[in-house]
Amino acid sequence: MDTIKYQLTDNQIPTSWYNLAADLPELAPALHPGTGQPATVADLVAIMPKELAEQELSTEREIEIPPVVRQIYAQWRPSPLFRARRLEQALGTPARIYYKYEGGSPAGSHKPNTGIAQAFYNKEAGIRRLATETGAGQWGSSLSLAGAFFGLEVKVFMVKVSYHQKPYRRALMHTYGATCVASPSTETAAGRAILADDPDCPGSLGIATSEAIELAMNDPFTNYAGGSVLNHVALHQTVIGQEALRQLDMAEDYPDIVIGAAGGGSNLAGLAFPFLGEQLRGGHRVRVIAAEPEACPSLTKGRIAYDFGDTTGLTPLLKMHTLGHSFIPPAIHAGGLRYHGIAPLVSQALQDGLLEARAVAQTRCFDAGLTFARTEGIVPAPESTHAIRVAIDEALRLKEEGRSQAILFGLSGHGHFDLGAYERYLAGELADEGYDQERVERALADLPTPAGS
Amino acid sequence: MDTIKYQLTDNQIPTSWYNLAADLPELAPALHPGTGQPATVADLVAIMPKELAEQELSTEREIEIPPVVRQIYAQWRPSPLFRARRLEQALGTPARIYYKYEGGSPAGSHKPNTGIAQAFYNKEAGIRRLATETGAGQWGSSLSLAGAFFGLEVKVFMVKVSYHQKPYRRALMHTYGATCVASPSTETAAGRAILADDPDCPGSLGIATSEAIELAMNDPFTNYAGGSVLNHVALHQTVIGQEALRQLDMAEDYPDIVIGAAGGGSNLAGLAFPFLGEQLRGGHRVRVIAAEPEACPSLTKGRIAYDFGDTTGLTPLLKMHTLGHSFIPPAIHAGGLRYHGIAPLVSQALQDGLLEARAVAQTRCFDAGLTFARTEGIVPAPESTHAIRVAIDEALRLKEEGRSQAILFGLSGHGHFDLGAYERYLAGELADEGYDQERVERALADLPTPAGS
Repeated sequence: MDTIKYQLTDNQIPTSWYNLAADLPELAPALHPGTGQPATVADLVAIMPKELAEQELSTEREIEIPPVVRQIYAQWRPSPLFRARRLEQALGTPARIYYKYEGGSPAGSHKPNTGIAQAFYNKEAGIRRLATETGAGQWGSSLSLAGAFFGLEVKVFMVKVSYHQKPYRRALMHTYGATCVASPSTETAAGRAILADDPDCPGSLGIATSEAIELAMNDPFTNYAGGSVLNHVALHQTVIGQEALRQLDMAEDYPDIVIGAAGGGSNLAGLAFPFLGEQLRGGHRVRVIAAEPEACPSLTKGRIAYDFGDTTGLTPLLKMHTLGHSFIPPAIHAGGLRYHGIAPLVSQALQDGLLEARAVAQTRCFDAGLTFARTEGIVPAPESTHAIRVAIDEALRLKEEGRSQAILFGLSGHGHFDLGAYERYLAGELADEGYDQERVERALADLPTPAGS
Repeated sequence: MDTIKYQLTDNQIPTSWYNLAADLPELAPALHPGTGQPATVADLVAIMPKELAEQELSTEREIEIPPVVRQIYAQWRPSPLFRARRLEQALGTPARIYYKYEGGSPAGSHKPNTGIAQAFYNKEAGIRRLATETGAGQWGSSLSLAGAFFGLEVKVFMVKVSYHQKPYRRALMHTYGATCVASPSTETAAGRAILADDPDCPGSLGIATSEAIELAMNDPFTNYAGGSVLNHVALHQTVIGQEALRQLDMAEDYPDIVIGAAGGGSNLAGLAFPFLGEQLRGGHRVRVIAAEPEACPSLTKGRIAYDFGDTTGLTPLLKMHTLGHSFIPPAIHAGGLRYHGIAPLVSQALQDGLLEARAVAQTRCFDAGLTFARTEGIVPAPESTHAIRVAIDEALRLKEEGRSQAILFGLSGHGHFDLGAYERYLAGELADEGYDQERVERALADLPTPAGS
């Protein structure tokens, strides 16, 4: 038997996003750093349109997807779900392995699911330019695509190490008409301050976020657009899991285990939250596993605390697992996972025992990516290889135990722009960048104290 | 109105390939270069399995697709057909523009349609290794993918200039487990002879083909697998046009103009032949336009003659439009179009007035590619930009004439591995490589004389 595709029709694209906040017992609010009070729509509209600010704070279970957004989704959605028969055979596992593939979007990952939505609301609000951060470039190129579709300028601060590691992603942003600078840059006070301290700073998602937010705060026609972490971003990604639920129905199966790579958390959230919602409303139970890099292990080694989403401290304070907003992760190739914190919704789900987390090393991830490419044909993004690694490990565990369970993982994007990293891995030149406890402890000593606490 | 997708279901994947040879009034046979007699299955089995040799010479209209091949097709087929509404709006044209997108295959182009089929038949025949040429690497990576699926070794001779221009395509082949060397190489007598003459030779598809065939001739467990030109390759690609016919039915439309990029010719053939078949059997008439590079214009400037398919002269003699098998095209980025000849079936269709040809310059193609990426979101391969250029030119002509017609073009692959070329184009560093009449005339003076003629 060969790999099987489960394909929905266009009218099965979800009509609303699913908001896990409606089903969670509790979620700690974001706090205004000055007052220590819960952030309000009025606080957020300085950098985003009202609709997104409202979504950020919403506890409604379902939020309608605007028809224009849904129509653009239909260019690549519903995305396919595959049963990885060839991978199963290669592993000799009794496990049934499914993957939901988001790499068919024009930008090559799940990120346009939120990029298109954010560009839509900003365009409606009369905004002319969007500023953002990007790690590997998956998000930056997706927002650039959305900007091209909606006639919005896009300015991307790309983490410096990725800017140099992934020249093709940068070129993709240019091709879509966006501008892209290496971060830390000299274009913002945040960037200049960091460069003054360390001219060789490799950058981080936290730093690039500071630069983008600074731009948005200083220009009424520029807004900030976030690629992950925020509630409304996780919300937009839930089209993934909602589709997967229907596709597994077609397969007459239900996952015992759901696995997603977690950097800022929106990819994992998008796939897993609809399944957790089912469970919280009395449906099937699932084990959800967040796969994160050993070099940047916020979920497995971070502290639960209020912290800034960016390095300079321009965001509201978010309650989350964090390695400290001043932590700068090692230069692993999974640039999209180099983030000090995690989406508060994912953090809360971990605290509530709704999911577990596992840290995996870079070379074992590339090894899994290679196995996957040679069996299933799709070359995965380095971020996605983290989910594949955990899926393979679980499938091998089930083989040892002689048990068949269904595993679903998120294949968030293709690795076409990361083939330089594969080539280095094949040449034996790729090392594991371990966990640096001392650096994390220094960063944790920097955690902010919310006013009034 | 936004861009619209027309998506078929898996059971609408064609069950047979369509063979234009059945409907053409006449097709000049390939000749054995020694005897001058029509090549037979017995001649061809030296380098390919019997089933493919039979397909090469077949005049059956329909040839069944093996179920295993069709099941693998289903991983990315049926491929989507889009109505390019955003592009139409940007051009302000009354034309209805459709494109059939083949870039969703794991290797990123239409090439796996034949790669999977060829690997299947070779595996069945007990072959252990496939040798082939590749230009830009679309074909080499597709055969590498097929080799990984069927457990066959794959050895790719990659045209030297592309080998250096497109390092990520090379990395993709390695990721699939294939070996890839720059051609001309020192590994074959053909390569060594050419290097002795010109150590800086940039290579060509003709030279790389000679090297691959030499390997196949010298080892009973190695076969040659061709990426274009051959009848059976064009045959396998006809799934594209067959699907497009059904999708245009869904759109309640029929193309007035069908456009495909033409290098070896199989991409154009795959899209256009099923439409030409309809016409030849009394159905709708279509204008078919082959878009070729100005720098390598076999259809618009070549001579109709018997010529070798490769540079050294190892293939049967093929009756086709040719610039001469010793012609080495300039180093344009559309490496897949750098071929001295054209598929005999395409050549015959041009002679029969069934299609027309147009040569386009490199920079105007990249300009069209950029317009397409910013409106439709997909970054096209340099080869595909040739079809886009002609489609846009036709749409603008219709705008001038105030007429609405339906244009269908083939978007044969994405340009994710060609972003270096886009970056160069954006920086104004890309030049047009013109037509070099003197070089062509020198090559034409080299044309072989079939024995007995």
